[in-house]
Amino acid sequence: MNPQSSEYASVRTVYWDAGQLCMIDQRLLPHQFVIARYERYQDVAEAIRAMVVRGAPAIGAAAAFGLALAAQQSQADTPEALRADLDQAAALLAASRPTAVNLFWAIQRMQGLARQPHAEVNALRAALLAEAQALADEDVAINQRMGAHGAALVPDGATIIHHCNTGSLAAVQWGTALGVVRSAFRQGKQLMVLVDETRPRLQGARLTAWELIQEGIPHKIIADGASGHYMRTQKVDLCLVGADRIAANGDTANKIGTYNLAVVAKENGVPFYVVAPTSTIDLTTPNGDAIPIEERAPEEVTHIDGHLIAPHGAVAGNPSFDVTPSRYVTAIITERGLIHPPFEVNIRRLMEQD
Amino acid sequence: MNPQSSEYASVRTVYWDAGQLCMIDQRLLPHQFVIARYERYQDVAEAIRAMVVRGAPAIGAAAAFGLALAAQQSQADTPEALRADLDQAAALLAASRPTAVNLFWAIQRMQGLARQPHAEVNALRAALLAEAQALADEDVAINQRMGAHGAALVPDGATIIHHCNTGSLAAVQWGTALGVVRSAFRQGKQLMVLVDETRPRLQGARLTAWELIQEGIPHKIIADGASGHYMRTQKVDLCLVGADRIAANGDTANKIGTYNLAVVAKENGVPFYVVAPTSTIDLTTPNGDAIPIEERAPEEVTHIDGHLIAPHGAVAGNPSFDVTPSRYVTAIITERGLIHPPFEVNIRRLMEQD
Repeated sequence: MNPQSSEYASVRTVYWDAGQLCMIDQRLLPHQFVIARYERYQDVAEAIRAMVVRGAPAIGAAAAFGLALAAQQSQADTPEALRADLDQAAALLAASRPTAVNLFWAIQRMQGLARQPHAEVNALRAALLAEAQALADEDVAINQRMGAHGAALVPDGATIIHHCNTGSLAAVQWGTALGVVRSAFRQGKQLMVLVDETRPRLQGARLTAWELIQEGIPHKIIADGASGHYMRTQKVDLCLVGADRIAANGDTANKIGTYNLAVVAKENGVPFYVVAPTSTIDLTTPNGDAIPIEERAPEEVTHIDGHLIAPHGAVAGNPSFDVTPSRYVTAIITERGLIHPPFEVNIRRLMEQD
Repeated sequence: MNPQSSEYASVRTVYWDAGQLCMIDQRLLPHQFVIARYERYQDVAEAIRAMVVRGAPAIGAAAAFGLALAAQQSQADTPEALRADLDQAAALLAASRPTAVNLFWAIQRMQGLARQPHAEVNALRAALLAEAQALADEDVAINQRMGAHGAALVPDGATIIHHCNTGSLAAVQWGTALGVVRSAFRQGKQLMVLVDETRPRLQGARLTAWELIQEGIPHKIIADGASGHYMRTQKVDLCLVGADRIAANGDTANKIGTYNLAVVAKENGVPFYVVAPTSTIDLTTPNGDAIPIEERAPEEVTHIDGHLIAPHGAVAGNPSFDVTPSRYVTAIITERGLIHPPFEVNIRRLMEQD
């Protein structure tokens, strides 16, 4: 297949096929389009850690399917024994990455299902796979609802700054912040997306630009440090970012560089929207200071595609996420609608609706 | 020579040797240390454009020596004819890069000398070379004076965020903002420098880290988007940046990403210092909006070391500089001392002292 083909727009990032979990290997994009196949939950945990799959909703779906694989792998012949094996798999999957809460949310949902009474172990195995599939299908529907809510905020002719990758590749299909861009574009709006390249792993330059090319959406990749220059010197209508975890007070953990973008947006009067499903909201985390921030290997900063860009012996810091205090956020766009400030009150109100 | 050797700390970036202009080829650092030699001003102009040499003071010195070369190249046998040839060379050198004002300042200084009465053409040739040499020597002395003024602001144990490269490689020797770091370190202060990698051309990761390793100064390279995370979550004492042009009101053009850093520093109460010689101050430019911002090739964003990091067909924007309005600047550190707000008044006052 030709990776520039529009067929790719319809490929899911995370899906089940013939007893295996299939995922686009995002480390190889944009130059190679390869589907990696998994039969063991241990390999899924490693794939999450190594960022074969990344993006909070996509990680959640991968972990759910990982538990469906664990159920297949297990030799258990009672639901009770299977639950014990699942707990072990859940612990390994949960240790793969610390910041995105969708990972833990998906694992808990699968474990919640496993704890329901099941007379027969194979019925439980089947129910787990069906639950993972349902979670993945729901993610697409949720993305499209966020897209519709968010697109209403995007004027025709808008210039949008977008950070990291939050598209089909960050979810099961469609995307969160980039899903809003996709929805607005499909409504016929003229758009220009300024794509933060998003160092160190270049998810913007590699993945978001690739998705925008698939969709034919006009864009320019920019260095992360250039966002303010564009906001100060030309009309930028809004910033759109995803989230890895939203605390109860609205503080948002997202890819490193989000906080700088948010501060500069506020300073320039540019609306700053966080686009995330309610599964990204963690009411048990009171505020951003309580969100664990993953520190990844320094080689992600000192090397690009295996090539050393810094001197031998140079040291690097590599916090993978940062926290944007909620005072910089204009609104949070969820599948249930917008959350405006005061976030502490309005998040709780939205989450209590059911 | 081993590029990790401390001998390199004493090599000048721009110097005259045996009738040739010698410059460290900064495109090859940190992996190769190569001295490029020039005999033609046309090649010097191209070297400035291609960023063999970069950094406002270094560009100024290179242009001055370029005019000394032009005088050597010229077949003129009268001072008048030589002046005409110099004007042609000056126009080519001035067209090499638009933003850094030190380029124009150095050219004007050389042309000012050429316009003084000279009875004999070879005496003028010799005077031009002596003037370029004096300009380069003065640059080192000026850097060291800035270093002394700036070091007084750096507490022992300081954590400093530094953008781009402003060290020996950006000047003739010593540096502007990194010269302050060097001076403070040589006073025996414990320092930790967080080195903005400075995309797209990675002057921080490639050049500043290399200089800090030479000096043995503790540092960490960070993604440009990570600066705010460090400011928000740990003690950062100050930011130090250089400048390519300072307008009469204190607005400062510097490497892209400076503005974002300045806004985030102000938001976090971190002092933000611009370190620049008075030759970087342009009283004829009233404010930042009047500073031309160079747009460089998109390939600097889409490629790293010749390697495509974005999809085929992706488009990039590449403003090479941005403007930081003076309200974000705590003080400007010059060789004549600090300039505090109100900048418009205090810059003029300092520049009128002589």
